[in-house]
Amino acid sequence: MNLEHILSNIKPLDQSAMDAARARQDQLTKPRGSLGRLEDLSIQLAGIMGNATPSIREKVIITMAGDHGVTIEGVSAYPQEVTSQMVSNFLAGGAAINVLARHVGARVAVVDMGVATDIPPREGLLNRKVGYGTANMAKGPAMTRGQAVESILRGAQVVQDEILRGVDIVGTGDMGIGNTTASAAIACALMEQSPSEIAGCGTGVDHEGYNRKLSAIERALRVNRPDPKDALDVLAKVGGFEIGGLAGVMLGAASRGKPVMIDGFISTAAAMIAVSLAPPCREYLISAHRSQEHGHGRMLDWLGLTPLLELDLRLGEGTGAALGISFAEAACKILAGMATFGEAGVSEKR
Amino acid sequence: MNLEHILSNIKPLDQSAMDAARARQDQLTKPRGSLGRLEDLSIQLAGIMGNATPSIREKVIITMAGDHGVTIEGVSAYPQEVTSQMVSNFLAGGAAINVLARHVGARVAVVDMGVATDIPPREGLLNRKVGYGTANMAKGPAMTRGQAVESILRGAQVVQDEILRGVDIVGTGDMGIGNTTASAAIACALMEQSPSEIAGCGTGVDHEGYNRKLSAIERALRVNRPDPKDALDVLAKVGGFEIGGLAGVMLGAASRGKPVMIDGFISTAAAMIAVSLAPPCREYLISAHRSQEHGHGRMLDWLGLTPLLELDLRLGEGTGAALGISFAEAACKILAGMATFGEAGVSEKR
Repeated sequence: MNLEHILSNIKPLDQSAMDAARARQDQLTKPRGSLGRLEDLSIQLAGIMGNATPSIREKVIITMAGDHGVTIEGVSAYPQEVTSQMVSNFLAGGAAINVLARHVGARVAVVDMGVATDIPPREGLLNRKVGYGTANMAKGPAMTRGQAVESILRGAQVVQDEILRGVDIVGTGDMGIGNTTASAAIACALMEQSPSEIAGCGTGVDHEGYNRKLSAIERALRVNRPDPKDALDVLAKVGGFEIGGLAGVMLGAASRGKPVMIDGFISTAAAMIAVSLAPPCREYLISAHRSQEHGHGRMLDWLGLTPLLELDLRLGEGTGAALGISFAEAACKILAGMATFGEAGVSEKR
Repeated sequence: MNLEHILSNIKPLDQSAMDAARARQDQLTKPRGSLGRLEDLSIQLAGIMGNATPSIREKVIITMAGDHGVTIEGVSAYPQEVTSQMVSNFLAGGAAINVLARHVGARVAVVDMGVATDIPPREGLLNRKVGYGTANMAKGPAMTRGQAVESILRGAQVVQDEILRGVDIVGTGDMGIGNTTASAAIACALMEQSPSEIAGCGTGVDHEGYNRKLSAIERALRVNRPDPKDALDVLAKVGGFEIGGLAGVMLGAASRGKPVMIDGFISTAAAMIAVSLAPPCREYLISAHRSQEHGHGRMLDWLGLTPLLELDLRLGEGTGAALGISFAEAACKILAGMATFGEAGVSEKR
């Protein structure tokens, strides 16, 4: 598998499937357009899946974990060891993503893309480690360009394995102490914005911690000078292994015609990398929610995505994506399962 | 059963259950507050159900149907017979509410509160008809004060029967050609607003139809002079049988300590009646969504409710409530099912 091959395999959506889905929505026993975003979503899913009445049965949340050298700058409210501790929590089924994935009938695939320590092998854990945490981006590149490509390729391979198992929709999730700092830096680089316009308080850093976070991002951008026209350069210099992996998940799913429900701030930074590398990928992405995190709305605007939910979430892990997947499934069921005016003997609009 | 008895039985929420739920949320393996509205919702549900870790298993959407004499004024895009046709569609399982209720694992209870024609008995249909459609409110009262009380009592009885069967949460839904006109009139009367501030296009009436709708509401308010301090007077003069029934569902559920997920514009008008009659009822209500319908946001503000979703829905039937119920269930599962920091061996915030 090489990156060029994946990028060139992402096709525009199937317009005839979308037209057929739209025509069917207008025949279902409800006023036209009265299911709002659910109707739009069903039409997008028809286009992605190339089927006028798509169905979503098998669902997976791919939650990727990685550590960040920049945590040494004191940018997070939690110590670095929480990344691996939370991976263990995911594998034991006790985290929020486990509860919400069970609620919506999705599996959780936990992927070690670059946690700083070795995690003992366990069922449900995929070891795709590109490195033992990134380097401190405030002092130099977070990773090499080769590692950036590798993280994307490994993410694409993970999702393609899932698709071979029969998955219909993929949700993205993340775990990594320090990764709102890296994600904000990615957004600042690609959008050419200053850190204070984008960075928020992540897991709940205090005022002084927030200032350290802004300073770390400023230094990372100044020291590394990531090229906004070169997403691989941005990922390498100020990104993270799990962020690259999630961009790979999005590109890999899009190249196989599967929809991706993107979670919050970190997944959206990954989406910015993916869409910069392959603009047609955008059509395969659905934004689950707008988070509490400061610049998230602007990042979604930059991508041209409108979030489904605004529930003041700021947890990550794929929690918002799990909720969003339930809407995607509902949208497909509406399209396929409702009676038409003719079938139900209901009078149409006069 | 009498109305005074129901109203006086609505107690404030259980503060100790809420305190315990809040304390538990802060021990779960996530940054404090990072699940936003889901955390708030779990705490409210704890208070309603008097249980620090409430659970939602049995779910019902109560969809109430009624006809409206005001349709003769040309206020709707659809003919009146659609009300009974859609009731048949609900019973056959082909409507949007059936699809979404199945998706979230809820039953649908369909109640004829006042459809203009007789509907043949069928499994799943409750005949609680108060009358064969309301009178034309543009020319006089929609119903008598006695009928207004009766519609509320019948609604309360329906929900209390459901609660005896073991229901944990109730969603409200409506069907009734012309009922956005009646609902807007209720809101105008209680909020002392003009029709153009509140009324929207309902099922999709055109510009001329919209003007006829505004005119009908204006005449209804002028001819009947509903007393904003007397919700029964408002319901009788400009309401509807299904709207009274839904107010009864809310009051009946609150009096038995059960949460109510309210749907869109019509359910919100019913909530305004219910809360006017018994202000403590408000704490038992959860707004599922803000609809496309013009004044809905202002009505929710008046009630002091913040909607969970904004998906541009404007269908009614309980469709938004079904989606909202899934969030309530998720919120309870988070509270009861996540591991604590101690249980999972995860380091807390430093």
